[in-house]
Amino acid sequence: MSSHAEPLPLGLHADDSREETVPARLAGLLDSIKPEQIRKLTTEQLIQLAGEVRTRMIEVIARKGGHFGAPLGAVEIAVALLHVYNLPEDRVVWDVGHQAYAWKILTGRNKDFDTIRQHGGLSGFLKRSESEYDAFGAGHASTSIAAAYGMAQARDTLGKKNKVVALIGDGAMTGGLAYEALNNAGHRRTNMLVILNDNEMSISDNVWAVHKGLNNVITSPAYNHIKQDIKKVVRALMGERAISAAHNIEEAVKGMMVPGLFFEELGFRYIGPIDGHDLDELVTTLRKVRRLDGPICLHVITKKGKGLDYAEADPIKYHAAKANMKIETGEMAKSSAPDPYTKVFGRTLVELGEEHKNLVAITAAMPGGTGTDFFAQAFPDRFYDVGIAEECAVVMAAGMAADGLIPFCAIYSTFLQRAFDQIIHDVALQHLPVRFVLDRGGLVGADGPTHHGTFDLSYLRMVPEMVLMAPRNEQELRRMVRTQLEYNDGPSAMRYPRGNSTGDIDLASTEYPALEIGRGEVLQKGKSIALLGIGIMVGHFEEAAVLLEEKLGHPVTVADARFVKPLDREMILDLAETHDFLFTAEDNTIRGGFGSAVNELLGEENSPRRAHVFGLPDRFVDHGQPKELYRDLGLLPEQIADKILGIVGK
Amino acid sequence: MSSHAEPLPLGLHADDSREETVPARLAGLLDSIKPEQIRKLTTEQLIQLAGEVRTRMIEVIARKGGHFGAPLGAVEIAVALLHVYNLPEDRVVWDVGHQAYAWKILTGRNKDFDTIRQHGGLSGFLKRSESEYDAFGAGHASTSIAAAYGMAQARDTLGKKNKVVALIGDGAMTGGLAYEALNNAGHRRTNMLVILNDNEMSISDNVWAVHKGLNNVITSPAYNHIKQDIKKVVRALMGERAISAAHNIEEAVKGMMVPGLFFEELGFRYIGPIDGHDLDELVTTLRKVRRLDGPICLHVITKKGKGLDYAEADPIKYHAAKANMKIETGEMAKSSAPDPYTKVFGRTLVELGEEHKNLVAITAAMPGGTGTDFFAQAFPDRFYDVGIAEECAVVMAAGMAADGLIPFCAIYSTFLQRAFDQIIHDVALQHLPVRFVLDRGGLVGADGPTHHGTFDLSYLRMVPEMVLMAPRNEQELRRMVRTQLEYNDGPSAMRYPRGNSTGDIDLASTEYPALEIGRGEVLQKGKSIALLGIGIMVGHFEEAAVLLEEKLGHPVTVADARFVKPLDREMILDLAETHDFLFTAEDNTIRGGFGSAVNELLGEENSPRRAHVFGLPDRFVDHGQPKELYRDLGLLPEQIADKILGIVGK
Repeated sequence: MSSHAEPLPLGLHADDSREETVPARLAGLLDSIKPEQIRKLTTEQLIQLAGEVRTRMIEVIARKGGHFGAPLGAVEIAVALLHVYNLPEDRVVWDVGHQAYAWKILTGRNKDFDTIRQHGGLSGFLKRSESEYDAFGAGHASTSIAAAYGMAQARDTLGKKNKVVALIGDGAMTGGLAYEALNNAGHRRTNMLVILNDNEMSISDNVWAVHKGLNNVITSPAYNHIKQDIKKVVRALMGERAISAAHNIEEAVKGMMVPGLFFEELGFRYIGPIDGHDLDELVTTLRKVRRLDGPICLHVITKKGKGLDYAEADPIKYHAAKANMKIETGEMAKSSAPDPYTKVFGRTLVELGEEHKNLVAITAAMPGGTGTDFFAQAFPDRFYDVGIAEECAVVMAAGMAADGLIPFCAIYSTFLQRAFDQIIHDVALQHLPVRFVLDRGGLVGADGPTHHGTFDLSYLRMVPEMVLMAPRNEQELRRMVRTQLEYNDGPSAMRYPRGNSTGDIDLASTEYPALEIGRGEVLQKGKSIALLGIGIMVGHFEEAAVLLEEKLGHPVTVADARFVKPLDREMILDLAETHDFLFTAEDNTIRGGFGSAVNELLGEENSPRRAHVFGLPDRFVDHGQPKELYRDLGLLPEQIADKILGIVGK
Repeated sequence: MSSHAEPLPLGLHADDSREETVPARLAGLLDSIKPEQIRKLTTEQLIQLAGEVRTRMIEVIARKGGHFGAPLGAVEIAVALLHVYNLPEDRVVWDVGHQAYAWKILTGRNKDFDTIRQHGGLSGFLKRSESEYDAFGAGHASTSIAAAYGMAQARDTLGKKNKVVALIGDGAMTGGLAYEALNNAGHRRTNMLVILNDNEMSISDNVWAVHKGLNNVITSPAYNHIKQDIKKVVRALMGERAISAAHNIEEAVKGMMVPGLFFEELGFRYIGPIDGHDLDELVTTLRKVRRLDGPICLHVITKKGKGLDYAEADPIKYHAAKANMKIETGEMAKSSAPDPYTKVFGRTLVELGEEHKNLVAITAAMPGGTGTDFFAQAFPDRFYDVGIAEECAVVMAAGMAADGLIPFCAIYSTFLQRAFDQIIHDVALQHLPVRFVLDRGGLVGADGPTHHGTFDLSYLRMVPEMVLMAPRNEQELRRMVRTQLEYNDGPSAMRYPRGNSTGDIDLASTEYPALEIGRGEVLQKGKSIALLGIGIMVGHFEEAAVLLEEKLGHPVTVADARFVKPLDREMILDLAETHDFLFTAEDNTIRGGFGSAVNELLGEENSPRRAHVFGLPDRFVDHGQPKELYRDLGLLPEQIADKILGIVGK
């Protein structure tokens, strides 16, 4: 088995340098190669190229930080696709772009690769505006098959001939959207290829039952029914001697059963599994597959972290690398910063879980990212990781709440968008006390616009019955978790940002009683100007207040709303009445967010005052460190103070 | 096979009436039976009871209107569940409550059954607040397995012993949420029963590939691979003579393949299929199943419209019945009302589809409900019904838009909530010109709170890049469709209500040019008071304006915003500046909706004016005719006029 491509007389290889003492693999294919030239490489050159990509990737990510395991596992797939397919005319849709670092490096972005995930640099995900090779952007998982299905229909409708390929990980197969798209593409007999990039785990534990289903099927009555019927037929025809064939039949059948038949049942032709790091096999298979019609699934087995022993051995730890990782050992610096909010939440939930045996925690493929891994360790039987299945997480939580559990449903703000309907229809409409905990509320930093949690205050605030909170610090966070625990009349939600807590509070020695629902807090009394913040923007206001006092010669009032819903009507109306100016601040879109809520209240109460709103603009915000982004947006404390001075006319 | 239950000495049956000339089946079991008594009935009595339920249901629905096909198909299932299970301690979760009319009739709501779907009467769906037998409410499909899974976990965590049963239709199996829940429940080896109520269609065409997958599997390489391997083994052991067994083996295998293995692969034990109208078989099987552990799927075949020939023959027509249907013939009165907005949209899309060969239409199991059935008939190759898979619909539309098609994605307002994340992440973030058309915006009437489309202006308005419109009449609707067609810079959405258009306009002889993006229209110039409406609430304002003019002695200004986003800044600021009072009106929640948008604009532009907002309250609105609901909410034109007079002090 060898690639059928003719070797390309690339500059560095066709000339005499081959005959010099420098071995071909050191000649630096990657430095000069253009994406379309990859089609002409020999298998040997492809292997060399993959090695160079892997080296480059490891070097940059170890230095700068970034996703690590998944991109290392998909190097050969990227190389093989660029070799076999006619790109960018053929369409390759990656699922969750962070596995596609090799793709970026190979499609004109090698030079800029060390700007990845930095403010103004390359995106950490695929992005249509970045390259014509990025057919479809994706930060959220399980979308690739549906997008590719749409592209295949576009091709057919427009009478084009290009191929369409979707990649999807086995983890992303836990998402219902992937199933919906397979079902539709299979039903319509669409010409397209789905590559199942099977690294046998998603970010954390993989709950795709199909994947683990082999033994279920082999021991299942349906399967045994088949087997018995086969035996019966064979026995009838050949007598008892034939029964000894049973074991061999079983072996023959089970190899193809799972997940092959899953795809076959959805209308896809299944091919595989093949080794996703064997470029020879990959290229040979893709060449064959490219000529086939109909919906096809190619099952490819890869290893997360491929090429680095420690990363292969601990894919959860090396899902992403911190900056300045030691390449030789994989050692990453311990952070001396205060605990992230995530960790504070996780530990608090364990404490409450000890008190309440009917408290359960649910997350969607993000136990570490939501801090529920602490709970999982302490109470494995009361912990649920549903995979990338936010809708399921929310509806099952509703079922749990209906039948007497205390469900905490901890999901990133941006991912909970996927369960918006279930929050309304299954939870709020039935007054069910599901406790939503939204990590990564506000600007998340390097992951950028696909991951910013900048809509949650708006999309949760419009939901009737919802109690909606955001803490200004870790102590308030703990109090809000207890508030959610004790509030049993309907749904509640708390959102907090990615990143470290203030570190100002000794949590070990602090009680954390529940808050009164809908009660804010005036932190500092002043005059003329009232600053009413929510969440971490209270901190921005506190700093701005210091600057304002310096300029104005008198203190201004600072308050923490705590609740976006229900608002503290009394406090807010009092602030409006007793001050000349009222300002609000939130790390959420200004469209329908906290500031709008305050203004709705003032309007409904016929207050003559209107709040000036600080918040995120009505556009998508790029990636970068939050501080850089706040500067761009004019939301740093000193910028806020300046704007306030402009408005009050000082 | 007979039911093992002892006959119950029910009043009407245990006494001598049996021996009178009145046959037992006329004795009226239904009138007096309590739900818990159903457990004690004989099979014969169960059959009688089912007949009585069916008669009652047909009589009421034919008279009052309501869902028809699905409830008739699920009568025996409801009876059998109440017979075999220990209710309400055991939990039965129906998927989309409208199939559960028999359940309502049998669980204490027979007397009130003819109030179903009426203002103040029974809900057309299951409702927890209505009965303890309604374990979980549902108007949206595909939720039952997830809810039941949560309930089963609650039972296990709390150490209870009750059984949990979820019902789901084959149509609802097209929804990813159902798959997510099966996957999780199977993975966790949860003790629960899923009854697949397979009527071989959903509301319209059923796109569940698994269902149609039998032939795919039998002709698939994977299956043939198995078969060849089996042949090889058999041949090796027994010689050529054995090969004749192949045909019989194939027959033996394929009977179990689909959809049995689909469930088996997801970790469920599959049993069936059985006849869902044979109470004897249903009861016997459920008794056995009730004793089994682990996740179990029971496949039940039913017929929509069972019991009425015409309804069985045309399940799409008889999905729901209009009031005053003739029971003997199924004849329903033709409506003399003006065309519904749905139909106006559907026809307009066909006209534009004739002009534009790259225009495609997508819907999610609602071709008739969205008017896209006209398009499907005219351009079957450019029409996509994805099943109950809104996420897939939106992402595939994004893929289509990325590759040069003009996708119109027509989905009910309430169901599009399911694709909120995809609208943000896959469409808007990538500036893709997907055209969203939301039917059933605002209050839908008899379907009630699960179906009201009262959040769309809020949840779409917060999305950056979105162009968002609502027409005040059918001519504006047509212009907006063309506006969407011509707007190619990003996503756009139009929402319109359920119900009939105004009928005031001769559409056949009217051109319908595109609107300028973000340009509203002043319909009537007056003074002092400006009424700025959106969608059909413009009509309420127009009527209110007549009343106001009578009282005030001068005309007031009425304007149609047309666009919720982008707002017509110029027009709105001018209205604010040149009038003493500005009012807005919308049939959307007041939380973050159109009125809030106007007030955000006024605040950002430092206008001293603030709009008084008429809209739907921040709570769930019950079912009833829209006019009844508007009256309850104080939003009828005369009520609005009165409130305005109060505010302006006249």
